[in-house]
Amino acid sequence: MQRVMDLDTPSMVVDLDVVEGNIRRLQAELDELGLKNRPHIKTHKIPTIGRWQLKAGAVGITCQKLGEAEVFADAGFDDILIPYNLVGAPKMERLTRLARRGVKVTVAVDSEYTARGIAEAAQAADTTLGLLVEIDSGGHRAGVQGAQEGRALARKIADFPSVSFEGFMCYPSRPEMTEVWAEAKDLLYRDGIPVNTISGGGTGAQKVSKANGCTEHRSGTYLYADLNVYRGGNCTLDQCAMTVLTTIVSTASPGFATVDGGSKTFTNDALQKDGMNGYVREYPDVYLERMSEEHGVLNLSKLADGAPRPKVGEKLHIIPNHACGTTNLHDVVYGYRKRNGEDIVEWEWPVHARGKIR
Amino acid sequence: MQRVMDLDTPSMVVDLDVVEGNIRRLQAELDELGLKNRPHIKTHKIPTIGRWQLKAGAVGITCQKLGEAEVFADAGFDDILIPYNLVGAPKMERLTRLARRGVKVTVAVDSEYTARGIAEAAQAADTTLGLLVEIDSGGHRAGVQGAQEGRALARKIADFPSVSFEGFMCYPSRPEMTEVWAEAKDLLYRDGIPVNTISGGGTGAQKVSKANGCTEHRSGTYLYADLNVYRGGNCTLDQCAMTVLTTIVSTASPGFATVDGGSKTFTNDALQKDGMNGYVREYPDVYLERMSEEHGVLNLSKLADGAPRPKVGEKLHIIPNHACGTTNLHDVVYGYRKRNGEDIVEWEWPVHARGKIR
Repeated sequence: MQRVMDLDTPSMVVDLDVVEGNIRRLQAELDELGLKNRPHIKTHKIPTIGRWQLKAGAVGITCQKLGEAEVFADAGFDDILIPYNLVGAPKMERLTRLARRGVKVTVAVDSEYTARGIAEAAQAADTTLGLLVEIDSGGHRAGVQGAQEGRALARKIADFPSVSFEGFMCYPSRPEMTEVWAEAKDLLYRDGIPVNTISGGGTGAQKVSKANGCTEHRSGTYLYADLNVYRGGNCTLDQCAMTVLTTIVSTASPGFATVDGGSKTFTNDALQKDGMNGYVREYPDVYLERMSEEHGVLNLSKLADGAPRPKVGEKLHIIPNHACGTTNLHDVVYGYRKRNGEDIVEWEWPVHARGKIR
Repeated sequence: MQRVMDLDTPSMVVDLDVVEGNIRRLQAELDELGLKNRPHIKTHKIPTIGRWQLKAGAVGITCQKLGEAEVFADAGFDDILIPYNLVGAPKMERLTRLARRGVKVTVAVDSEYTARGIAEAAQAADTTLGLLVEIDSGGHRAGVQGAQEGRALARKIADFPSVSFEGFMCYPSRPEMTEVWAEAKDLLYRDGIPVNTISGGGTGAQKVSKANGCTEHRSGTYLYADLNVYRGGNCTLDQCAMTVLTTIVSTASPGFATVDGGSKTFTNDALQKDGMNGYVREYPDVYLERMSEEHGVLNLSKLADGAPRPKVGEKLHIIPNHACGTTNLHDVVYGYRKRNGEDIVEWEWPVHARGKIR
């Protein structure tokens, strides 16, 4: 029996009961809203957890990178959305190979260039792929601008060989999209082009997706949750399943305690101006203030006089700012459950799709 | 012959001629200053590059984590400084194993707790280890406070079995340390305890280390260099050896172009308020403004009217904010040299010590 507290540090650990609770809760809410659930695996990158999501009722999964999709296809997943413009010969080769082996792959595009590249590759490989048109919901990172541009691209796709126009997507779902989706559907109805899917996304944005008129919802971070999700009001601290187990290695600088993980363990994602960059379960008044690569510095200034103070050698569970970034820094995650009041490691998983940047 | 421009993206690529130039230049400067060179391998994490550093004249290497030291010891490195408080039974077991196999390992400590732990482990394993005392140079992440505290810990170490007191270290070297080191040396001279090493550190801080009275200097980032080093005035853009080769995947949002790498490819380290978070070699007026996990958004607003604009499918070399964080996100680095005007891949290396967080 491996106790979590006996793990060497830093180690990424997840409470499996909390994970299962998060899966059940989102699925129940999406069922009630009448939205299909297509969770984003970027947060965990582990096929076993993806299967739990499917078993609970998800219709398929979302992968941001082709390399992630390959890992999950190898593990038997057969309905994968890649909401990302895939460009270039090596990726076309890999994408069509995925389709030819029987995986239902849908890809989002926002340009004729990208759509044509996929269509030509699919035709050459004698296979077919579904395409969604991405419309920018205001983030200005991808997506055509508005319903008219969406319609224009949809019509081109409808004329291309070897690809089918399946519908639209955006990230994240935002109230303004209600009008955009209504207009886009209306335009395509007049064109006689069916819209099977409108895919919305974002942890905590499922009600917005519903109000927008989406058919499905993608969310990733809900699975482990993190300080960002907590700050957004979309989970409680108890619903944060992932923590990094660390050890205090220094208390030599008055007012601070240093743990053995920094930005190469936690990332510098979502750094907060107030310095609250990690929640310490054992000391709620202590917070992860700043990081260098391998040092994490806890600020002790809010500890009451006479309150117990962190000591060198003590182990602490820290909730990170951003679970998805943290996952991507760890080769392994330890899943545990409480038994007789102690956290016992149940599974040690490789993070299979970690680092799949291509 | 593999051309860099034919690599799939995103890919971390390094110009080997520039790397070699950076190695030579720092070594020559340290030779002239009369400082031993003990480069930090955190930037590259690749034994072959560490051997280039040794061959140029380095006396040994610096590893921040035991796991990095193990990778380099496996590759034959036999003089390793770990400037980090190592705590806990699993690490003591691994540390003494390294020492028993004949690697000269020196570890920095800043508390009696940590020093005693190492001494007891070394004694139990029938081996010996060298210790440096870390004194805080103002970063408040580790290190005892000032020369008197440094002396007190040095005296305790001198009395412990199975460890030898070797001297002091700090990070980074700062002008204020000149007085601290002078006082510490003086105090220990009076105690009859020899100070063999005073180790300073920081890319660009070698002259400060010299002025401080250090015997050796540790620097890491000089090897690849990055935008942070450039901003600090410690390299030119041409001396930045590492770039991430990316592909433009979207220009759908006016004023922006999006590449296929974000914070999981570049990190969010050292984010700049002005949004200059990546330098685009092909378009000096275009800059990496913001990232989500897999999208990097380039701001085009400074492009002159009528200037060529980035197109979907085009490949761009981007210098990251922080080379060391970037290295840690990539399983592989491609080393290239220019031949007949084209960048040709010479070596494809696994980043052997990537992710060695323990």
